[in-house]
Amino acid sequence: MTPGLSRRRMLSGLGAIGIGGLVAADATATVASAANATQIVPFRAEHQAGIITPQQDRLTFAAFDVVTKDRNELVALLKTWTDAAESMTKGHLVPGGAADLQAPPADTGEADGLKPGNLTVTIGFGPSLFDDRFGLAAKKPAALAPLPKLVPEDLDPAYTNGDLCIQACADDPQVTFHAVRNLARLGAGIVVLRWMQLGFGRTASTSSAQATPRNLMGFKDGTRNLRAEQTDLIDQNVWVGAETDQPWLRGGSYLVARRIRMYIETWDRDYLADQQNVFGRYKTSGAPLGGSDEFDTPNLGSSDIPDDAHIRLASPEHNGGIHLLRRGYSFTDGIDSTGNLLGGLFFIAFMKDPKQFVTVQKALAGDALNEYIQHIGSGLFACPPGVTPGQFWGQGLFT
Amino acid sequence: MTPGLSRRRMLSGLGAIGIGGLVAADATATVASAANATQIVPFRAEHQAGIITPQQDRLTFAAFDVVTKDRNELVALLKTWTDAAESMTKGHLVPGGAADLQAPPADTGEADGLKPGNLTVTIGFGPSLFDDRFGLAAKKPAALAPLPKLVPEDLDPAYTNGDLCIQACADDPQVTFHAVRNLARLGAGIVVLRWMQLGFGRTASTSSAQATPRNLMGFKDGTRNLRAEQTDLIDQNVWVGAETDQPWLRGGSYLVARRIRMYIETWDRDYLADQQNVFGRYKTSGAPLGGSDEFDTPNLGSSDIPDDAHIRLASPEHNGGIHLLRRGYSFTDGIDSTGNLLGGLFFIAFMKDPKQFVTVQKALAGDALNEYIQHIGSGLFACPPGVTPGQFWGQGLFT
Repeated sequence: MTPGLSRRRMLSGLGAIGIGGLVAADATATVASAANATQIVPFRAEHQAGIITPQQDRLTFAAFDVVTKDRNELVALLKTWTDAAESMTKGHLVPGGAADLQAPPADTGEADGLKPGNLTVTIGFGPSLFDDRFGLAAKKPAALAPLPKLVPEDLDPAYTNGDLCIQACADDPQVTFHAVRNLARLGAGIVVLRWMQLGFGRTASTSSAQATPRNLMGFKDGTRNLRAEQTDLIDQNVWVGAETDQPWLRGGSYLVARRIRMYIETWDRDYLADQQNVFGRYKTSGAPLGGSDEFDTPNLGSSDIPDDAHIRLASPEHNGGIHLLRRGYSFTDGIDSTGNLLGGLFFIAFMKDPKQFVTVQKALAGDALNEYIQHIGSGLFACPPGVTPGQFWGQGLFT
Repeated sequence: MTPGLSRRRMLSGLGAIGIGGLVAADATATVASAANATQIVPFRAEHQAGIITPQQDRLTFAAFDVVTKDRNELVALLKTWTDAAESMTKGHLVPGGAADLQAPPADTGEADGLKPGNLTVTIGFGPSLFDDRFGLAAKKPAALAPLPKLVPEDLDPAYTNGDLCIQACADDPQVTFHAVRNLARLGAGIVVLRWMQLGFGRTASTSSAQATPRNLMGFKDGTRNLRAEQTDLIDQNVWVGAETDQPWLRGGSYLVARRIRMYIETWDRDYLADQQNVFGRYKTSGAPLGGSDEFDTPNLGSSDIPDDAHIRLASPEHNGGIHLLRRGYSFTDGIDSTGNLLGGLFFIAFMKDPKQFVTVQKALAGDALNEYIQHIGSGLFACPPGVTPGQFWGQGLFT
């Protein structure tokens, strides 16, 4: 395990190289103290963090294209990224040796003094990484095929695909932005940002201990989401197992991202009864129609829940028992050219096989919700398993 | 004072109109409890909240254009907005009577269950509101003139000006988004959104009790900012007084917004010594060059602080004693067409007279920082004083 530089050790480094007046000035810097230790999510484990980790409140998501043609440079970057991500999740700076006045700082600094905030940094590999550039074609999982055309979608290439993705989640948006920015910086000349999305509020829960948040349509979202505590269902639906044709991916997962615009003004003009029929839930309580508590099992045999209700068509009962582990966020990017709000749901889900998402999304072709949404961006990525001490992200792919 | 509907009273309303099964389902809804009371910033006071209020962590800022030509419609909207803003700052829903299944809900719902989060909602009037549409020309303050061309700027019309602005600040971004969205919705047909900006992290402190945050250049920002506790300086620099030609504005303030892009990749390649010289401060500690503590008064007589250092040129000492009350936020909107990060500082400052900003910004024409930034959006707004019980925002402008 690479220890990384703590802020305090960073300061010691400053003293060691003897840059005089600076040392005193820097001695007041705040550090990630032991009091924050509970906010640190372990980076090295069987699975990557940021999947079944209790979902943090804020997100920065980025897709990258690899611009080098040199496999060794890509491998070197993955090693560098692994160490940097581990350091940042501890609330430390990006490793880089002692500060040098005559060099750019190793860390960009905007998270200096902020708590670790449960930061997780999760990597995924897109289908395009497995072309002929890096000799990875034989390592491409059969399931990592481009997603078919789905309904409703009108994808913007500026928010679609990518060779790599980074999902940074934390309870402080500045911590997530800092993580993505610093990885992008470390990748200069090797990767370029293809797209990036800030998510300002979680729209799912991945732990039974979490309250259900509301999406921008005002409904509780993710009531029936998989929870980390449902270990059997997680094993059956989230972690890649022996069924894969690519052993390097075992213990990993597939990430599907969909940038879903909500036509908010249209939705806001809809009657409460219709809004509730669209979802199949009561708006305030989140209970399924005909039920009384948010966590009541929806009575899908009842006509209380319309045939085209979202919770019916998305349900495991309607899809052969398929579950997804959702981990989406609300987003906004201001307004469009007509003055309407440009925002919605940045959908993220993890699964054992992308066909789980495809199956559910095909079932949603008849979703009453489709009148109010459009998928405008998309990404599919294979997330490798976690790293043990000494390993780097995706090591199994290169050995 | 309009009491607004608390979530609990909203539920009672549901019961009163007898919509059967819904009532039981909705009875589990969370409410803004007394435990959250300390997170409520009083809405009605001598001055508008959101100016010297201790700066909250998150922002949604919006500029609107008025599209009605009917002065009465504008006045009615300002009354509606005042009541809605007051209700939301208490953590309540937008007022609208009991829920009706056959009507759209009065509140869009995504903040239902969230804490008030110190929400403040602040309104401002742009120069263009005082044209011949609403008979307000004679009420236009002489100081509310369009800003001159300043350096460095390349303003995007899509992020510049506006008849009205709303600044929503809170410690939860979903609460700020909800506030702006619901005001926009209440204004349908009367106003349209002209631009909107999410700010993810504060870059100033307005109370002595607050730690200094870091901007996206990694430096502590706002160390010498005015603080609410400096009441004499606040009176001298922030609140419009007897000097104005428009009595309706006394007790108000001028808001200058500048959307400032940082050329982050260029900055990140700069040496630490140069970064420190650009600002005139040590990066880690925030102390002025030559000093040892963040709050040391910069020794502007010393050559430790270069002639073109930002803190020198922006200082009251360099500008005839002028102070601004800054209240800016870091922002990001993804990447530009070249793959570079599109983000920076959404600068907001409040002042007694816009010439304070113009004076300081003209002094910054020679700022070493200009190599790394560009002002790409701008707005100037006159913020009326606070409202007493029964008053509405800008009432003095229409009577």
